[in-house]
Amino acid sequence: MTPLLNQTQVRHVLVSGGTHGNEYTGAFLVRHWLSDQGGLERSNFSTHVLLSNPEAFKICCRYVERDLNRSFNPSGVLANPEALELSRATQIQRELLSKCGGQMPDAIFDLHSTTANMGLSLVFTNREPFNLLLLGYLRERFENVNAYLWEEPESKPGFLNSLSTKGFAIEVGPVANGVLNADLVLKTAQLVFGCLDFIETWNRGEPQALPEAVPLYKFVRHIDYPRTVDGLPAAMIHPQLQNRDFQELKKGDPIFLGFDGTTTHWQGENLWPVFINEAAYYEKGIAFTVTQRLEIELKNLI
Amino acid sequence: MTPLLNQTQVRHVLVSGGTHGNEYTGAFLVRHWLSDQGGLERSNFSTHVLLSNPEAFKICCRYVERDLNRSFNPSGVLANPEALELSRATQIQRELLSKCGGQMPDAIFDLHSTTANMGLSLVFTNREPFNLLLLGYLRERFENVNAYLWEEPESKPGFLNSLSTKGFAIEVGPVANGVLNADLVLKTAQLVFGCLDFIETWNRGEPQALPEAVPLYKFVRHIDYPRTVDGLPAAMIHPQLQNRDFQELKKGDPIFLGFDGTTTHWQGENLWPVFINEAAYYEKGIAFTVTQRLEIELKNLI
Repeated sequence: MTPLLNQTQVRHVLVSGGTHGNEYTGAFLVRHWLSDQGGLERSNFSTHVLLSNPEAFKICCRYVERDLNRSFNPSGVLANPEALELSRATQIQRELLSKCGGQMPDAIFDLHSTTANMGLSLVFTNREPFNLLLLGYLRERFENVNAYLWEEPESKPGFLNSLSTKGFAIEVGPVANGVLNADLVLKTAQLVFGCLDFIETWNRGEPQALPEAVPLYKFVRHIDYPRTVDGLPAAMIHPQLQNRDFQELKKGDPIFLGFDGTTTHWQGENLWPVFINEAAYYEKGIAFTVTQRLEIELKNLI
Repeated sequence: MTPLLNQTQVRHVLVSGGTHGNEYTGAFLVRHWLSDQGGLERSNFSTHVLLSNPEAFKICCRYVERDLNRSFNPSGVLANPEALELSRATQIQRELLSKCGGQMPDAIFDLHSTTANMGLSLVFTNREPFNLLLLGYLRERFENVNAYLWEEPESKPGFLNSLSTKGFAIEVGPVANGVLNADLVLKTAQLVFGCLDFIETWNRGEPQALPEAVPLYKFVRHIDYPRTVDGLPAAMIHPQLQNRDFQELKKGDPIFLGFDGTTTHWQGENLWPVFINEAAYYEKGIAFTVTQRLEIELKNLI
């Protein structure tokens, strides 16, 4: 039992979903919580609920004009500064400031889903002790929880959850876009309740049952499909790689199967793939992402 | 071994895919076969290959302006007679007439995919002996082949494969839209090869190893989700119904799970559900479709 002492209190938490309009798991959960917030109430902080992109949800698309989850103060030149999602991002920030007493929420949990076999995964953009301890707390209590670390120190990708250093995106899968899988919806709700339970005890400085260490899968690089001259994939994720997210990929393992029957083998160092065969990434040039597996000791964080 | 004698010869076969632009299994298979038709060649008929809706495929959507697979001479008043898909349907028919010597193809296999656990399923619009015998032929050679019969004598739905009485839509699943699952792609290709092998022997009048009878799942009615006042689903497919396509649904079995935890139980007669939790049917008011299981003896057909 590890006491959590002297930490910053969390007063305002945001649970958002439908940031991508075709990811129904989160969108329908926040719709439910907007009408019945009972399950989200805790004793020592406020939880706010947001359906992030209702226009994209209405047409069951990831976004209307640009990815809302790359629109929160992103760095770099914007191709379409008038896009619906950029003004939606500004509107969301204004509303959050008003709800959270002139500040951004202390912690944000943004609910996503993926066609990849990511289980109950958390996408970290930093190594905040709060997030690492919460990862440990969740791994003690739920099966199939893993965290992917996507630090981008040089540029800001503009994620909704980057408005706060505490919290993360929750990516559950595999599930098709535009579909509710009841089992995954229930598990996602339980995971959110687990995050809120953690915060309640965090605010109280109560001791937690935590593992000694947690694995963290740190971004190394994206791997694209082989492509035909027209830019479309010339191969598929190999059946032996499909669904093997967070499992070690070794030199010589098959990664792609061409429509002509050719198998491509992994030539790189041993790494851990994530987001294998995510629908939204076909157009982004990502067949899967490879990560390095770190082991983070929790006792040093407290 | 049952001899197939005195039947009409099949001279022109169409294999089409991408009729729905986000169903990648068929779209990518026909793209491959358009560049390498080797696997489709047989000795006594011609096979033509079609990417049906390239505009919808380009944007990874089911359709651009209206469902192309409801646009081939549909009955009833058309809401949007100028829609891109209606002129595409006319263009496809003109091209087919020109390729097939002034007639429609003798048989059409239109490749679809579904988020439902339909396995390798065939969607029949009639009870042509050719189709029933081919069903028997495939069931002798492949696992997980079932046929759903959707006869609509009063109205013409306007399916592409309705241009011919021989052939059917092939619906493989479960797979997310906009995703290639290599295992299902390979199985779909093998199933198409099986259909072509059957036709080769059919044209020769060769005896076939066939089962005595085949099951046929005949449309009874569509079942919609409970809905909230804004028209969106108020419940999900129950985890105990999910993935149980072609399995008997009995009175009292759970069918829906509400976001408030309420379970809805099946009150109707014992029937067999299909297309459970298909993404494209959320907006069509279909949570699943119930069918009656018929047993069709093949020996009477020859």
